[in-house]
Amino acid sequence: MNLKSFFNPKTIAIVGVSESKKKLGSVILQNLIDAKYKGEIVPVNPKYVKQKFNGQKCLAKVSDHKTALDLVVIVVPASSVEKVIDDCIKNKTKNVIVISAGFGEIGNDKIESKISEKCTKAKINLLGPNCLGAIFPSSGINASFSDGFPSKGHIAFISQSGAFCTATLDWALQKDIGFSHFISLGNKAGLSEIDFLENLAEDPQVKIFALYLESIEDGAKLIELIQRISPKKPIIILEPGKSRAAKAATSSHTGALSPNAQVTKAAYRNAGAIQVFSMREMFGLLEVLTFNGNKNFGKRVAILTNAGGVGVLTTDLVEDEHLELAKFAPTTIKNLGKKLPKEANIQNPVDLVGDADGERYRVALDILGNDPNIDQILVLLTPQRTTQVRATAEFIAKFAKKTKKNVVASFIGGRQIKSGLGILQKNKVPSFDFPSDALEVLGLLANKEHSKVSPTIKTKRDIKIETLLKEAKKLKSLPASSVYQIAKKYKLDTPQSQNFTDFKKAKNFAQKFFPKNVVLKISSPDAIHKTELKGVFLNVNSVKKFEEAWQNLSRSIEIAKLKEAEIQIQEQIESGTEIILGINTDPNFGKVLLFGAGGIYTEIFHDTTLRVLPTADFPKMIQETKIGEVLQGARGKKLAARELIKIMENLQQLVFDYPEIKSIDMNPVIITPKRAVVVDFKIIL
Amino acid sequence: MNLKSFFNPKTIAIVGVSESKKKLGSVILQNLIDAKYKGEIVPVNPKYVKQKFNGQKCLAKVSDHKTALDLVVIVVPASSVEKVIDDCIKNKTKNVIVISAGFGEIGNDKIESKISEKCTKAKINLLGPNCLGAIFPSSGINASFSDGFPSKGHIAFISQSGAFCTATLDWALQKDIGFSHFISLGNKAGLSEIDFLENLAEDPQVKIFALYLESIEDGAKLIELIQRISPKKPIIILEPGKSRAAKAATSSHTGALSPNAQVTKAAYRNAGAIQVFSMREMFGLLEVLTFNGNKNFGKRVAILTNAGGVGVLTTDLVEDEHLELAKFAPTTIKNLGKKLPKEANIQNPVDLVGDADGERYRVALDILGNDPNIDQILVLLTPQRTTQVRATAEFIAKFAKKTKKNVVASFIGGRQIKSGLGILQKNKVPSFDFPSDALEVLGLLANKEHSKVSPTIKTKRDIKIETLLKEAKKLKSLPASSVYQIAKKYKLDTPQSQNFTDFKKAKNFAQKFFPKNVVLKISSPDAIHKTELKGVFLNVNSVKKFEEAWQNLSRSIEIAKLKEAEIQIQEQIESGTEIILGINTDPNFGKVLLFGAGGIYTEIFHDTTLRVLPTADFPKMIQETKIGEVLQGARGKKLAARELIKIMENLQQLVFDYPEIKSIDMNPVIITPKRAVVVDFKIIL
Repeated sequence: MNLKSFFNPKTIAIVGVSESKKKLGSVILQNLIDAKYKGEIVPVNPKYVKQKFNGQKCLAKVSDHKTALDLVVIVVPASSVEKVIDDCIKNKTKNVIVISAGFGEIGNDKIESKISEKCTKAKINLLGPNCLGAIFPSSGINASFSDGFPSKGHIAFISQSGAFCTATLDWALQKDIGFSHFISLGNKAGLSEIDFLENLAEDPQVKIFALYLESIEDGAKLIELIQRISPKKPIIILEPGKSRAAKAATSSHTGALSPNAQVTKAAYRNAGAIQVFSMREMFGLLEVLTFNGNKNFGKRVAILTNAGGVGVLTTDLVEDEHLELAKFAPTTIKNLGKKLPKEANIQNPVDLVGDADGERYRVALDILGNDPNIDQILVLLTPQRTTQVRATAEFIAKFAKKTKKNVVASFIGGRQIKSGLGILQKNKVPSFDFPSDALEVLGLLANKEHSKVSPTIKTKRDIKIETLLKEAKKLKSLPASSVYQIAKKYKLDTPQSQNFTDFKKAKNFAQKFFPKNVVLKISSPDAIHKTELKGVFLNVNSVKKFEEAWQNLSRSIEIAKLKEAEIQIQEQIESGTEIILGINTDPNFGKVLLFGAGGIYTEIFHDTTLRVLPTADFPKMIQETKIGEVLQGARGKKLAARELIKIMENLQQLVFDYPEIKSIDMNPVIITPKRAVVVDFKIIL
Repeated sequence: MNLKSFFNPKTIAIVGVSESKKKLGSVILQNLIDAKYKGEIVPVNPKYVKQKFNGQKCLAKVSDHKTALDLVVIVVPASSVEKVIDDCIKNKTKNVIVISAGFGEIGNDKIESKISEKCTKAKINLLGPNCLGAIFPSSGINASFSDGFPSKGHIAFISQSGAFCTATLDWALQKDIGFSHFISLGNKAGLSEIDFLENLAEDPQVKIFALYLESIEDGAKLIELIQRISPKKPIIILEPGKSRAAKAATSSHTGALSPNAQVTKAAYRNAGAIQVFSMREMFGLLEVLTFNGNKNFGKRVAILTNAGGVGVLTTDLVEDEHLELAKFAPTTIKNLGKKLPKEANIQNPVDLVGDADGERYRVALDILGNDPNIDQILVLLTPQRTTQVRATAEFIAKFAKKTKKNVVASFIGGRQIKSGLGILQKNKVPSFDFPSDALEVLGLLANKEHSKVSPTIKTKRDIKIETLLKEAKKLKSLPASSVYQIAKKYKLDTPQSQNFTDFKKAKNFAQKFFPKNVVLKISSPDAIHKTELKGVFLNVNSVKKFEEAWQNLSRSIEIAKLKEAEIQIQEQIESGTEIILGINTDPNFGKVLLFGAGGIYTEIFHDTTLRVLPTADFPKMIQETKIGEVLQGARGKKLAARELIKIMENLQQLVFDYPEIKSIDMNPVIITPKRAVVVDFKIIL
């Protein structure tokens, strides 16, 4: 989809202009005029055909315009929109923005689909409906009913909520943060975030993407775009609805279903986006990236303060944001010691002490600026008797301009610091009300993942497995025997095991293991929740116990009337570390791999991590979890890690070879010093 | 310690007044005058004996004043302070504030101790040294070098950092937040937080305590005071230095050693204080408690917004702050449905939609005000085209005045919302830049623990155990045999166990268990880290394995030259839930009980909770942990909980009977459907 004429229209018609200044049509017209739009404005409204707006004759309908219009903005009641679209088609209009509300968001999906289909067929780009419009400051275009016109800048802001647009705009005007593109997506009946990311990826005006999304259109495509764009241009994503409480609320708003929060988080993060969860984070990032986008955002933070306690308080929060307190180079400490009074703390956090003037800040900043062990610098100021708020702000600004380190400030107080805040803003030094707010943003920037391109997986199908899967299609899960065939094929180590219906044969098999333990369980396509069915006997290591278990299970099979039931006798894998591996199919992002603490701990500690497949990120997955630490501390740890990665690779191969497998559950996989054994292995179709 | 004359001095001398307006002595004098102090001001400085300050003759020294002074503020170089104190003693001065720095904070502990001792002996209350001074707005006293005089209010603010004082004061002046007492503790050579809490507990002016502490003087006393005061007056505590990174930094600042963060947190929380970790939280709490201190701070939050997406974003954060999204009563939903347009969301979060005017907010607020299922209300506003910022602010203010619910606002934007913010502040409605900041404070208030008074433990010593402990004093830990005697006495279930040096006897004992497993390990007062010594053999269930283990252990004993070594044979407790119980002695708070996930999971998941002893809070400790959830899901759960609580009670009794026990480590305690067995039990003296 080419949006060139959308971003640079030579002609813009407004359907729904009005005499009343309060009507949205008038507001949009005035906004266009105020923005100094250089193209032709075409007012349209059958009520006012005799009149002129902005010196232009008002047309009754779009098709009265002689040539094809580049952009038509529609602000008429929902019920009349379709007719206007028909007329746009007649005019060969290239782009349409439907401001009008009253569509999918209140349940009128039918009419929304209709106008969407018509636009698609006519190759008209459609923005909206139910949106604020679009603003392109550098082209002098404000085709929206916004209150205020943002300055030119480098943020492409794309939001699915109009209110979020107006709040952001109001904030940005006060902070003097500029935009290249400011787009309200509305109900996304036509253009979506995908189209804008594609069309703006290479636009030199755009240096930062900020997305507010309530639903996503094409997860795989979105991830691919993030992977491609994020190494050059940071992409911030704010997506409401991560909590259970919010899920219910979201569905009633903009008609969007919220995706699985954990999967989304993993998908965005690993593609290289910065996901945020509050407006505070979003605005903070926009400020820092706008002012300091080309600076160093490493993890090693230096804190400079004129209040020791406040420095320590701030240091406390460094770990919480996954940052590191920079360890100064010896020359830094030597030079600080030379230049600062003896009461000062010359280690990080540097305490200039209460009587620090601007000059002392300047000297310290210059020394920190030369330290290669520092990535980001947070400058704190509390207003004390001899504090020079203005001079200090000036020195910070001067220093920030010349250094490659990311310098941000937090002046804490009220009336006395105001003049300093003004100087910081004028000089484009990001500044935060509280040190905690600053660290939050520094942490988000430092912990942005490097975008990784997904590996290509060569697939290969085996007719035997294909048949197994096809035959089992009516069943919920694959029978144990088939699972073990697949395990063998994909080199997954499983316990020695055999199924029996005959007591004597079973006993002979089991006895070979004693006094080692075996496990007895029911094997039947009907028995999913085995423990509840009293279907598992552990620690069977004598004939007596075996007989007891066999009788119990046989009775259970009878009572539950299980079909095709057998009793499975399985080597019991002794004490090891229990982990879980799983595959799931996400409606937005496709196949997802889960790794983490297994057994009873999966549900309790939620010590798990996810990747959208395909991935080659297996070692990192292990590192990310706490159970990974256990494995690294275990005997035979190298083997454990190597075997685990092999299992993960083979698991990925399996679901790419047979995408008809919907989910796989391996819980637990037991890691012993000698083996990594898949003890419980379920395949769901 | 009686501080009556400190809070209401009839005479105040300033030692170190000066001609130069910039000198601190002059600043303090001017501050006192500006505060309209009604008592007698006595300027003191031998340099200016011929001069008058504020119409008062300057004295050469304090003792030149004929009567005993109520308060002397000292602002002379550190080296001269002792001489002035001597003179105060001569004058029979009642209270002294030493503003001067240059004492303990830069290593001059000696002179600090000296003046402290002299004051104690002479019964002079000493504040400082190295402090900003003290301000009592309602008595018209500003005996500090602060910049500005806060308004009268209900906060007793007590801070160990002068810079934190100035930042807070500057913030409070802008927000028009008042104080009853504003005290800078400095190095705490005399008066500490304890003295002020004791003396202000019953003061009707004080409704809120805010403490900034870098060290604590008497943990047990502090906890007792918090327990007593917090049911009537909230106590907020901010204590830097919780992180490892900060520990190093703190020790170089104010000479204070930071206490164990986990213990402190448990101690404060369970005594009923609100501990905060950032200035944002502290300031937010002070605003809400000052304006809405008498309102309902329950967990059930209603969110009201004119932007659906922003409402959902906010809802997402409700869980993070341990709040609940209020479930509206049926009448609320009915009434909202009747009064709001059909596009509105009438469930929580209530979305008034973008064109909401002030009236619509008013109507919705009135309906929410009648819902008994709502405790706190967060009103959000984004500036949209038809938003009435001022009118809405007025309606919120009017509603907030008449309701018992805690109402706070967050208007999101910049220029357009300013007028609304002014109205909110004027009407004392707490307001936050971002919804996330508001929820943070609502969460802190809702999750404040009810103060619990500690139970009284009756102690009883047994001469036999006393002797065991005395005999083991030279050893690091108690020998196994003694531990098991204590276990028996305190009804702690331990595995069947016996120690042997004779192979044959040992084999006979072990064989009785086979094919059940036994554990063989070395028992020697020298062997602490058994696994590393190759000192534990698990899963021994045959004679062959027994022989192998015995030989191995015997060899280890020989090689390590362990004294008094025996081999212990112990019944192996099979699969259960592993928990940890521990006792430690904290330098500030005394005996502390730890409960949580045991075995390898203790170190990895840190799923533990603490209580300062004595406590009766055992069931809550179990509930607070995730391992507690496992136990509640386990078979025999009632038994598990009952047995666990019994162990905890007995453990507490043990360390109260024998406080010479420094720490106890029970890891793991294994919970099976039938028993709660202390498998590993160490007592350290």
